Order: sequence, then structure tokens, then C-alpha cells
Amino acid sequence: MVDTRNPLNIGAAARAMVNFGFARLRLVNPYRVAFREARSAVGAAPLLQAAEECSAVADAVADCRLVVGTTSVGHRQLQHSIRRLEYGARLILRGLACHPVALLFGSEKFGLSNEDLSHCHWLMRIPTLSQDLSMNLGQAVALCLYELARDSQAARARPARVQPATANETEQITLLLLKALERSGYVNPVTAASTAEKVRRLVRRVEIAARDAPVLLGMLRQILWKLDQ
Amino acid sequence: MVDTRNPLNIGAAARAMVNFGFARLRLVNPYRVAFREARSAVGAAPLLQAAEECSAVADAVADCRLVVGTTSVGHRQLQHSIRRLEYGARLILRGLACHPVALLFGSEKFGLSNEDLSHCHWLMRIPTLSQDLSMNLGQAVALCLYELARDSQAARARPARVQPATANETEQITLLLLKALERSGYVNPVTAASTAEKVRRLVRRVEIAARDAPVLLGMLRQILWKLDQ
Repeated sequence: MVDTRNPLNIGAAARAMVNFGFARLRLVNPYRVAFREARSAVGAAPLLQAAEECSAVADAVADCRLVVGTTSVGHRQLQHSIRRLEYGARLILRGLACHPVALLFGSEKFGLSNEDLSHCHWLMRIPTLSQDLSMNLGQAVALCLYELARDSQAARARPARVQPATANETEQITLLLLKALERSGYVNPVTAASTAEKVRRLVRRVEIAARDAPVLLGMLRQILWKLDQ
Repeated sequence: MVDTRNPLNIGAAARAMVNFGFARLRLVNPYRVAFREARSAVGAAPLLQAAEECSAVADAVADCRLVVGTTSVGHRQLQHSIRRLEYGARLILRGLACHPVALLFGSEKFGLSNEDLSHCHWLMRIPTLSQDLSMNLGQAVALCLYELARDSQAARARPARVQPATANETEQITLLLLKALERSGYVNPVTAASTAEKVRRLVRRVEIAARDAPVLLGMLRQILWKLDQ
């Protein structure tokens, strides 16, 4: 993070790093008070204690073999290739498998300067609709780290469904409900058979969970008991 | 957003909505001062002006056919199925194609209450490593909306590469560099042929861009001119 001014942003970035499994934070020329306040804030304390302070971007990225700048674009003629976050993150992950990679974030007000950008191999942008309305720094860091940490497999995998009620439980519920409807005069004797079919189908459509079956049976029994008084 | 206390979070959420193309913000029982301050803050003003204030979750979600709560889990025995953001977002997008969907965010301090959660069909969680260290509210909103807006195609598409220099330009650079190395005494006459090959290969490995070729040629010509003085 270069020239960061707001301790809340340093803290939010550090928390996002812990949340998504990143460990090494380097602050280039941070506002001294911001760094001190962020360190004393709750959450992510060990990571912030270990954060390194550098006086130049060149020092902060010295041991990295890929340096990626972040930008909201729109405000500057850029000499770099710019990659969307979704694609850039794939390239960064490929790099991270072999060597350290630096991800650079500029100051809240001005972003990365041209001098900062000249240390970058390429730039990455968050695919926002409006390039004028920038994100806040803490959000931008969280989005980039989330994209690096997200599991594209998880988007496809269908998690285990809730255990559904057995056909027997479902049928008991159907029968008790039908009895309650008869007792309360809902069922017209002439169309009773068709009503029973409709109720049976309705009960199956609502997909009752196994754990809800005894609760529903209890409710229906209590209603029937009261109807029979 | 339910019971939101901090105007900065309302503002950050509104900006993330504009950035990722979402329009309808409803605030359930917001802290009055927070709502007023957020409205007067810069950025996302039209969206905040149109934001609706509701006194109950039921009112806020009344016209929606799918209601999804967000949670950091860990702090509560939950009766709902919980889906990871990557997967939940796919389900929300499928729903959004047909009807309005509500995405519920709880207060900064306590998240969604059990009463709030009882209005939800299922819950979604951001896949953070540590469930104790929650994200700040503005970051959580931004991450959920980003996941809904991100383009999984963009992760695969390889953007157009920078136009590389022609073989002729590359060869001119090679020849000028060799001449400069000869003039400065770098080349041992005995191994000159092998040095030329090494330099030729090196120049190809660095992948010179078309737009950089004239600059490099200019630099080498100037150096040669000075060496010849």
C-alpha cells in the first residue's frame, strides 16, 4: 500500500488479508499516525505487527518477480496493459505458484503515481460500471484478495441438500391435514376425492424437510384435537 | 440493510451498488443520523435519494420472491442452509432473471437477528478463512455485489497482446547493440561470432513491443554517436 493516509483503510486491508489467507503487508511511506493507529486497532494485530514499512516502491517490491498495480483507470493515459480483475487474478495465481508477487495499491486520493506505475509489469482493474465513482481503498483490497481466494469449483458444486422427509412422514402429514380440513368443513363431500388428490400434490410440492416433519405432525394433531372438542 | 448504524457503510454500500449495477436500496430501521449523513455524502447520490426506508424486514422484502440473508456464521446455531458466495450468487442470478431478489445485510455489531433470518429462504456466507474476524459491512456488500457482477468468461479470455516489434526492427536493434558493444571493447574478437549469437537471442527473449522499437533504436544511435566521437 503506497502513501496510505487513513488508518481505517490499513486496518480493513489487513483484515481482508487475514480473511483470505495473505500474510505479507508492506506500507510505502504511510502517514505515520495512520500506521500507528491501525496497529493499535483490533483485528489482524499479528499481521499488522509484522507489516514492513518502506520508503520507496522499489524497496517494497525488490524480492518480487511480478509487480501488479491496481487502478480505477479513467483518469490518466496509461502506458501499461490493463487486465480485468477476473483475468489478472488468474495470472497472479500462476505467478504465485513459483515466486513472490506484489500487488500495489495507491493512496486514497490519487491512486498510484506514474512513478509508482513504472515499477509495475501490468495493471489490474476492478470491473466497475462507472470509472468515475471509485471504490474505497478497503473495498478495493478486499475485492482483489477475494478474487484471488475464491474457489471457482465452489460455484459449480451443489452442496448437500437438506434431508427431505420420508414418503411415509409426508403421507401422514397429508392424511392429518385432510382430516383437519374435513372436520373444519373445507372439504365438499361431492368433490372429496379430487380435493384429497390436490392436497396430496400440494404437500409434496412444498418439499418438507425431515426435521420439520415431526413439528408439522404435532401442529396438525393439536389442531385436530381442538377441532374434535 | 437492517439496523445500519454507520453512514460510511451506507455510503460504501451505495457506491458498490452503482459500481456493479444494482439500483434498489432499502434500509430497515436505519439510525436516522446515519441515513441523513449518507444521503448528503458525495457519490451515489441519486441511488441514495431513491433509497426507501422501511420499519420492518417484512415490508422491505414484500415484493421479492427470494430472500437471501448474509452471515459470517460462527456465532450462532443456524437453522438455514448456508451457501458459499460463489455458489449462492449463481442461484441469485438465476432468480434475478425471473423476479426480484432481496439480499439482506445485518447491523455492523450484531449481523442479522434470528427474527430477520426467519424471513430468509437461505443464507450466504463470504468464504473467509477465519470466521471470528468479520469483514466490515461496506466490504461485505461490495464482495457480494462483485460476485454477482463478475464475468466468469473474462477470467478465461486472453486480452489482445501488445503489438510486438517486427523481426526487422528487432534485428536493427540487435545490430546497433552489437556495434555499440564492439566500439566499447565488450566484444572479444576471438569469440565475436558466438557473442553475436548470444546478443541476438537475448534481444529476442525480452519481447520488444512495436512502440518501444523506435525509442530503443534512438537510444542506441545516440550512444553510438557518442562512442564515435
